[in-house]
Amino acid sequence: MTAPKTPLLDRVAGPADLRALSDEDLRHLADELRAETIHAVSRTGGHLGAGLGVVELTVALHAVFDTPRDKLVWDVSHQCYPHKILTGRRNQMDTLRQPGGLSGFTRRTESPYDPFGAAHASTSISAALGFAMGRELGAGDVGDAIAVIGDGAMTGGMAFEALNHAGHLGKRLIVILNDNDMSIAPPVGALSGYLGRLYADAPFYDLRTAAKNAVSLLPPPLQEGARRAKEMLKGMTIGGTLFEELGFSYVGPLDGHDMDTLLGVLRAVKSRADGPILIHAVTKKGKGFRPAESARDGGHATAKFDVTTGAQSKAPSNAPSYTKVFAEALIQEAETDDRIVAITAAMPDGTGLNLFAERFPARCFDVGIAEQHGVTFCAGLAASGMKPFCAIYSTFLQRGYDQIVHDVALQRLPVRFAIDRAGLVGADGPTHAGSFDIAYLSNLPGMVVMAAADEAELRHMVATAAAYDDGPIAFRFPRGEGVGVEMPERGVPLEIGRGRIVHEGEQVAILSFGARLAEVEAAREKLMARGIKPTIADARFAKPLDRDLILRLARDHDALLTIEEGAVGGFGSHVAHLLAEEGVFDTGLRYRSMVLPDTFIDQAGPRQMYADAKLNAEDIEARVLSMLDVGMLSKRA
Amino acid sequence: MTAPKTPLLDRVAGPADLRALSDEDLRHLADELRAETIHAVSRTGGHLGAGLGVVELTVALHAVFDTPRDKLVWDVSHQCYPHKILTGRRNQMDTLRQPGGLSGFTRRTESPYDPFGAAHASTSISAALGFAMGRELGAGDVGDAIAVIGDGAMTGGMAFEALNHAGHLGKRLIVILNDNDMSIAPPVGALSGYLGRLYADAPFYDLRTAAKNAVSLLPPPLQEGARRAKEMLKGMTIGGTLFEELGFSYVGPLDGHDMDTLLGVLRAVKSRADGPILIHAVTKKGKGFRPAESARDGGHATAKFDVTTGAQSKAPSNAPSYTKVFAEALIQEAETDDRIVAITAAMPDGTGLNLFAERFPARCFDVGIAEQHGVTFCAGLAASGMKPFCAIYSTFLQRGYDQIVHDVALQRLPVRFAIDRAGLVGADGPTHAGSFDIAYLSNLPGMVVMAAADEAELRHMVATAAAYDDGPIAFRFPRGEGVGVEMPERGVPLEIGRGRIVHEGEQVAILSFGARLAEVEAAREKLMARGIKPTIADARFAKPLDRDLILRLARDHDALLTIEEGAVGGFGSHVAHLLAEEGVFDTGLRYRSMVLPDTFIDQAGPRQMYADAKLNAEDIEARVLSMLDVGMLSKRA
Repeated sequence: MTAPKTPLLDRVAGPADLRALSDEDLRHLADELRAETIHAVSRTGGHLGAGLGVVELTVALHAVFDTPRDKLVWDVSHQCYPHKILTGRRNQMDTLRQPGGLSGFTRRTESPYDPFGAAHASTSISAALGFAMGRELGAGDVGDAIAVIGDGAMTGGMAFEALNHAGHLGKRLIVILNDNDMSIAPPVGALSGYLGRLYADAPFYDLRTAAKNAVSLLPPPLQEGARRAKEMLKGMTIGGTLFEELGFSYVGPLDGHDMDTLLGVLRAVKSRADGPILIHAVTKKGKGFRPAESARDGGHATAKFDVTTGAQSKAPSNAPSYTKVFAEALIQEAETDDRIVAITAAMPDGTGLNLFAERFPARCFDVGIAEQHGVTFCAGLAASGMKPFCAIYSTFLQRGYDQIVHDVALQRLPVRFAIDRAGLVGADGPTHAGSFDIAYLSNLPGMVVMAAADEAELRHMVATAAAYDDGPIAFRFPRGEGVGVEMPERGVPLEIGRGRIVHEGEQVAILSFGARLAEVEAAREKLMARGIKPTIADARFAKPLDRDLILRLARDHDALLTIEEGAVGGFGSHVAHLLAEEGVFDTGLRYRSMVLPDTFIDQAGPRQMYADAKLNAEDIEARVLSMLDVGMLSKRA
Repeated sequence: MTAPKTPLLDRVAGPADLRALSDEDLRHLADELRAETIHAVSRTGGHLGAGLGVVELTVALHAVFDTPRDKLVWDVSHQCYPHKILTGRRNQMDTLRQPGGLSGFTRRTESPYDPFGAAHASTSISAALGFAMGRELGAGDVGDAIAVIGDGAMTGGMAFEALNHAGHLGKRLIVILNDNDMSIAPPVGALSGYLGRLYADAPFYDLRTAAKNAVSLLPPPLQEGARRAKEMLKGMTIGGTLFEELGFSYVGPLDGHDMDTLLGVLRAVKSRADGPILIHAVTKKGKGFRPAESARDGGHATAKFDVTTGAQSKAPSNAPSYTKVFAEALIQEAETDDRIVAITAAMPDGTGLNLFAERFPARCFDVGIAEQHGVTFCAGLAASGMKPFCAIYSTFLQRGYDQIVHDVALQRLPVRFAIDRAGLVGADGPTHAGSFDIAYLSNLPGMVVMAAADEAELRHMVATAAAYDDGPIAFRFPRGEGVGVEMPERGVPLEIGRGRIVHEGEQVAILSFGARLAEVEAAREKLMARGIKPTIADARFAKPLDRDLILRLARDHDALLTIEEGAVGGFGSHVAHLLAEEGVFDTGLRYRSMVLPDTFIDQAGPRQMYADAKLNAEDIEARVLSMLDVGMLSKRA
């Protein structure tokens, strides 16, 4: 845990200081930056592998370009830790991903060196092109626009859309393809094979060749000389043509850890580039830290760890994670139903489908970072007679929203959506929160929307989705461990649109949708201690609503409170709409709906995030007391 | 208006009959099918140009492949009219796009020959790949999977995602690139230039060469002979490499109107293809009908027309279309603010931005069929200091939903969303309805959401969006003509989050969000005749809500009714949430919310669609009477 010696880095207050260093010093600085990054992440945990892969690139970019006037946009941006260390945030690195601390991603509000935040993949070229065209139109003080994008993120359709548009516009724009043959998992897709062929059989450019070609490549693109230089370069690489065909100049492949090459190429590009250019740098995820280099995922994300051994600390838990419960339940269903197939968008480990793929390799599809395609691919599978389970995190499923509407719901195709990471997710912060899926799914005609109150319910919901074949069905469940309830041997299909009473009570009813049920139970304990005995119900379905249950709760109680881990517009809104239509409000009902607040909740432990969102047991208790006007002041007093 | 002579077509009851015809008869049949298509559309109006471009392709596909067992997936599918005529729907063509009639698109519920419906672009390869993998896994009775996709749709990111995945999987899949150098507007983007270069300098394959190469190309892909054949073929075309680099075999470019070539190539592909293959057919949109061929958009869509002259009938209107009001207002704002830029995703005419582009060519961007990129490009422009107006139809904006959340709202970047075709849209039917945007935008923190009650309001909202720079702002407006109100000389920025009282009344208040206001006014007339004098308010903002106005309406009236052209979860849900939080329901309020029903509304005239949705004046009147328990039975009696 002793800090590494970093004499050069200690003298760097910001990127401007890099520009005074010799190339040799920059090489040494990169070594120090790597050691510092490992040291920092060992104390906080976080995304390690991606940052280690771009240490040299980070130093070279800030040394050559005039950041922050030049806009450096990191795609996904979990590789931004070395960038943060170099841009004035070194002494805050121990707050990384902590409450109130540095974000694990770039963030506009955090630093002028973060001109565009990210966390979802494939956005950087679009954003950088926006800066570039803003510059062309005379907006503010904008210099170069530089996107750094991984080969995994390059498979996302919007990256292709952006390349296509940038190639068409033909204005100066710098895209650096950081090719580590890896996204979070090993990448899939034909593009990955293509990129591999680009450098598999060819030696890397050495410094002089690369710099010379980068220079000769870059006079005005329509001059004959430039065209000849391009042809020559093309002949020297295996390919590069895919990008060239889209209107980019292509330089590479380069050794992304060779500082001299990087500096030479970037300087040439900076001085001469006149249109869109793609620099293909080959790097190694986890570079320079053996435990990360040798990990299957390149040391993608880590808990706190021992710098010498790489051994990670992790809090023990007896309850299985929801993710694992989902995967095991799906495997169980698939054993007796060979129409079940599973689809992930580049997250086999995160969704648990790695387990499914081990058991049923032919029935598991990783479509790449391609949620749009993934959803419609599922629709096609369903139309062919299969039973696709589309396992995508709530926040990433937003990418496939139109496909859910247009290809799945409109055609009433039985695609099963397994929505992990629903609700607030902790250290990944607001970009990863699954806040909106209840709202954006529950108003689609013909959709069935469930949320699991605990891990046993999740198992039943997997069985329900497997059995239901009349149209699309979705079930959501949170990040993290279950609550430790007894698990059924196997899932039993639930009746569609039926909730359940968990505790009969009186006066006030709490109707929970999803995994807040444990907090509702805890609130009930507190209320019982005050002599209030609430009825507790688990709605299970946001769509179709259990009308009978809801109307009975409204009729038999003075007050009705709904709670969900989602934004307004979802479960509570559907309940309120039903109550209004049925005239329940005409004669008065104390009705409240607890939802995520109208703010993006900053990173913290999930429990703290829910405290910030006022959705924990004590908030539920306070809400009930306020509704009943007992025990404490009402919130408005 | 006399029907063309179609002796061969008259003998064709379905695709099976094609398979008994000689190649020469198939050629003649194509001519008859073209004449029949022109005749049919002349009587109904609809999408003409795209269908005329694929007449030969349609005949050849059905003649060679075993539809409906082989799954033919038309991308977008506005080119499906000849397909419908051939697949048993000829005698229903006069019901095209009419209430209760044939859809203008493919539709699973309409025919087994429509295995996958469409209307939004770029979905066909994903769907076809789903069928192909279903077949590989033994699902049902599935033969070949064939996607027919235009060059415009090919620029959509999800098409690239699907190519990447299909190339990776390596299974038999047939993609036909219907390259007419045209989407709805002339296409933009580097891909278009690339495709053009593929056939600009090279002669089309003649029959024998094409068929021979298609055969030699297609033995098992890893055999040396096949590889050599591919190299040879590659040498014979200029390129084709982009698709080959993604793992596809490439055949082309072909003359897509030469029946012999098409039949030869398709037969070779059918008998020999062993992996993913892309057939590049060059066609002419509007082929064979001079007025369409010579139109700038290839005769994309048309009203009823005279077959001889091409002259279209059109109902006259004195009110300007909302689209035009938007465009003129934006031009007016842009004249005094050079930071304003406008973005369309391949719909310059439909959004009115063609007018903006004429006036400010450098400040208008057509990003292609690329809503994901388009939204984040706008975010980058906003971050650079520009004022981007992102003009995308409500239904297509669903494609950029994650980008709105992650790139725009989370970073609170001042992107202006101009959302045309909000609400129900008429003959294009449910795939084009703008039903969900109020819900999916209004729960995003920091978003401002407006809807225009009439064309004058729209002008003010454009001015409001131009003036507002604190974060994202959206304004929605319907398809079609305005209501004919007096137009202000220029727009005046509205106070953010303030609605307006239109008529003071008593007892019942109707709070309208958007263009149902005219129907609300008409309902008021009817109610006044019954002695009921409702208060009418225009909310203008779904977010932020005008709390003071809403609470005052609730306090001063016995009943409050909201109305909007959107699904549940939107404006009414936010109002209900506010009323609940403020305890207004505790003591009783007759509250109802009129929203789009929980069904997809079938094509009809917009007025009829709103009648089906129960959102017209008579429905509002009935709702008010029912709420007040006067004049008629309550809806539940």
